[in-house]
Amino acid sequence: MSPHDTVLEPTGDLLALLRALCDLPSVSGSEAAIADAVEAALAPYPHLEVLRDGDAVVARTSLGRAARVIVAGHLDTVPIAGNVPTTLVGTGDDAQVWGRGTVDMKGGVAIQVALAAALTAPTRDVTWVFYDNEEVDAALSGLGRIVRNHPDWLVADFAVLGEPTNAGLEGGCNGTLRVEVRVPGVAAHSARSWMGTNAVHGAGEVLRRLTAYAATDVEVEGLVYREGMNAVAIRGGVAGNVIPDECVVTVNYRFAPSRSVDEAIAHVRELFDGFEVTVTDASGGARPGLDAPAAADFAAAVLTFTGGAPAPKFGWTDVARFAELGIPAVNFGPGDPLLAHKDDEHCAVRQLHLCHDALRSWLTT
Amino acid sequence: MSPHDTVLEPTGDLLALLRALCDLPSVSGSEAAIADAVEAALAPYPHLEVLRDGDAVVARTSLGRAARVIVAGHLDTVPIAGNVPTTLVGTGDDAQVWGRGTVDMKGGVAIQVALAAALTAPTRDVTWVFYDNEEVDAALSGLGRIVRNHPDWLVADFAVLGEPTNAGLEGGCNGTLRVEVRVPGVAAHSARSWMGTNAVHGAGEVLRRLTAYAATDVEVEGLVYREGMNAVAIRGGVAGNVIPDECVVTVNYRFAPSRSVDEAIAHVRELFDGFEVTVTDASGGARPGLDAPAAADFAAAVLTFTGGAPAPKFGWTDVARFAELGIPAVNFGPGDPLLAHKDDEHCAVRQLHLCHDALRSWLTT
Repeated sequence: MSPHDTVLEPTGDLLALLRALCDLPSVSGSEAAIADAVEAALAPYPHLEVLRDGDAVVARTSLGRAARVIVAGHLDTVPIAGNVPTTLVGTGDDAQVWGRGTVDMKGGVAIQVALAAALTAPTRDVTWVFYDNEEVDAALSGLGRIVRNHPDWLVADFAVLGEPTNAGLEGGCNGTLRVEVRVPGVAAHSARSWMGTNAVHGAGEVLRRLTAYAATDVEVEGLVYREGMNAVAIRGGVAGNVIPDECVVTVNYRFAPSRSVDEAIAHVRELFDGFEVTVTDASGGARPGLDAPAAADFAAAVLTFTGGAPAPKFGWTDVARFAELGIPAVNFGPGDPLLAHKDDEHCAVRQLHLCHDALRSWLTT
Repeated sequence: MSPHDTVLEPTGDLLALLRALCDLPSVSGSEAAIADAVEAALAPYPHLEVLRDGDAVVARTSLGRAARVIVAGHLDTVPIAGNVPTTLVGTGDDAQVWGRGTVDMKGGVAIQVALAAALTAPTRDVTWVFYDNEEVDAALSGLGRIVRNHPDWLVADFAVLGEPTNAGLEGGCNGTLRVEVRVPGVAAHSARSWMGTNAVHGAGEVLRRLTAYAATDVEVEGLVYREGMNAVAIRGGVAGNVIPDECVVTVNYRFAPSRSVDEAIAHVRELFDGFEVTVTDASGGARPGLDAPAAADFAAAVLTFTGGAPAPKFGWTDVARFAELGIPAVNFGPGDPLLAHKDDEHCAVRQLHLCHDALRSWLTT
C-alpha cells in the first residue's frame, strides 16, 4: 500500500492513529498525502464542515455555542532521520512510541483527528485546524496562509495548540529574531596576505561579543522566560589561496515576550555596533496570557487532569500568531519538547492518552 | 574560426603570439585546444623533438651541449572574468595588454614558443616544457604527472620558470600548508540553547589565535621571505534554529623555505593546541639557490639585461617541484605578480620584450 492510500481510522485505537500519521512521511513542503488522509478521515462526519486550503485542512462544528475554540496542530515534521516508520518499545501505559513526529507533533494531531470525529456535540463550538509548513520559514507557514486567504476560518475566543508540553500547559512563547552580521574584508592572494584584510579574522570580534554575552531570564506574568543569543551559522572564504573578503555570522536571538520585535532588533544592533546587521527573520513572542478567563478555565480543567503546572514555552510556536489575531492561546500536548527534532524522538503513550482524555473532558463538560 | 582552429605563428610578432595564446581560453582542466596549438606550432621544426603527455607538451633539442636547461610554463589560467579576449591599451613600449593570462602566465609561454622555434642552435640544450593544471590542486599538476610518467623528460642542470616576476628574478618560494581546524559542539534547538554547546562560538578562540599571530620574516640565503598565517575559509551551522555542532576553520600557512613541511605542520599544530587539526594540502617551499653556479650565471646574464635584482618569491611555484628533483630553478617572467588572478590582470608589453630578449641573449652567448 503506498502512503497515499493510507486510511486513517479516527474512532479506532489512538496509538494506531498516531503511528499511521507518523508513518506517512510529511516533511515540510510534502504534506499533500497527510492532508488528503486527514480530509478523507473527517469528511464523512455530518457534524463537521471540512475546508481545505493548499495542504491545510479545517474542520468545524456550527452548533451555535456561546464560545468557539480553535484546536490546532501542524502536519509537517523536520526531515526524517531513519526513524520512520515508528517502533513501539514497552507495553501498556509504560510504552513509548519512537520515530519522527511522535513528539513534534503528530500526537497532538492524532488527538485532534480522534476528538473531531468523536465529539458530535462539544460544549463549545470547535474549529479543528491542521496546517502545513510550520517547521520552515515563517513566510511559508500554512497557518499564516489561512490568516491571509480565509481570516473568517480563524475566528475564536481561545486557541489550544497541540505542541509538545509533556502534557503540561505552556503559556506564551519567546520571540525569535535572525540577523546576518557581515564583516567586510579585502581579497588578496594568500601568498601575499598583507595586501588584503582578512574578513574571517575580523569575525573574531563578533564571536567574542557572542561568547561574552550573558543571556537573561525575564519574568513575564509569573513565568520565567530564558533568552538566548547564538550564532547558528558562519560562512566565509572563496578559495584555498584567497584572503576572504567577507564573513557572515547568522545570529539567532530568542527573546522574552515582554520585548517587542523592534526592541529585540535594537538590542542586537547595539550588541553588534560597528558591523552591518541585516534582519532576515523576525517573529514576536507571546505573553502567557494565563489570566485571560478562557485560558484560566482551560488550565484549571486540563491540569487537574494531567497534574501538570503552567510553565513558559521557550520555543517560538504559533501561539504567537494567535496572539497577533487577538486570540488567547496556550500550548498543550503530549511529548517532551526536548526530544523534538532529535534522532531519538519518542513519546510516552501514557501522555498521549492523558492529553486526549483531558481535552475530551474539557470539551464535554 | 573556433578556438580549436587557432594557429600560432611562433616566428611572427611576439605580442600577437601572446594575445593568441590568451584568446584561447584555457582554464585548468580545459587545456586541450591550447596544447594542440602549441604542439602544432612546434612540430614542424626539425631541431626539436616534440613529446606529448595528456595536455602537456615538451619540445627539446639534442645538440650534445655540455649543459641542459629546462624552460617551463603552465598553459592553464584561473577562470576568466569577462577579460577574454585581450585588449590593448596604449602603443609601442608603453602599451599594456589586458586580459586573463596576460600575467599568469601566457607571457612566459609566448616567449617559450617563440624561442623554441627561433633558437635552432642554443648554447645549452633546452627542454621547453608546457604543462596543464597548475592553478588547481597539486595532485592534478601536469608537471607532477610528467615527473611520474616520464622522469627522463625532466633531466636538466637548471630550470627557469616563466612565472611573472616583473622581469626581475625571484628565487625559491615559500611553502604552503592547508589545515582544517575543527571545533566540536553539541547540537540543540536554538530556543533551548543552554542544552547544547555552540561550536561557532568555540571557533572564536581559533580566530583569536590567528589574529594574535605575528607572522615572521625569514632570511634565507640573503633573501627575506615573508610568511603568513590566515583563515581562508570558515563554515559552521546546519539550520537557522539549531546550535551548530561543528565549526571548521581552514587555515593556510605560507612558510619560508628554510622550514620543512614537517616543521610547518608541527608549528601549526602547536598554534592550535587543543583543537583537532587535519592537514589537507602541503607543498614545501624552495630555497633560492642563487649561489648555484648555473643560477648565478643566469642571474648575471638576464639581470644585466632587465636591470632587476634578485628577490624572494612569496607565492608557491613549481620551482619547488624542480628543487625536489634536485634541479636549481628560478622564476623569471613578464608581468606584475600582484595582478595575477585579478580581474584587472594586465602586462606591460615592454616587459614581454625585455624577458624575451634577455632569455634569447643568455641562450645564444
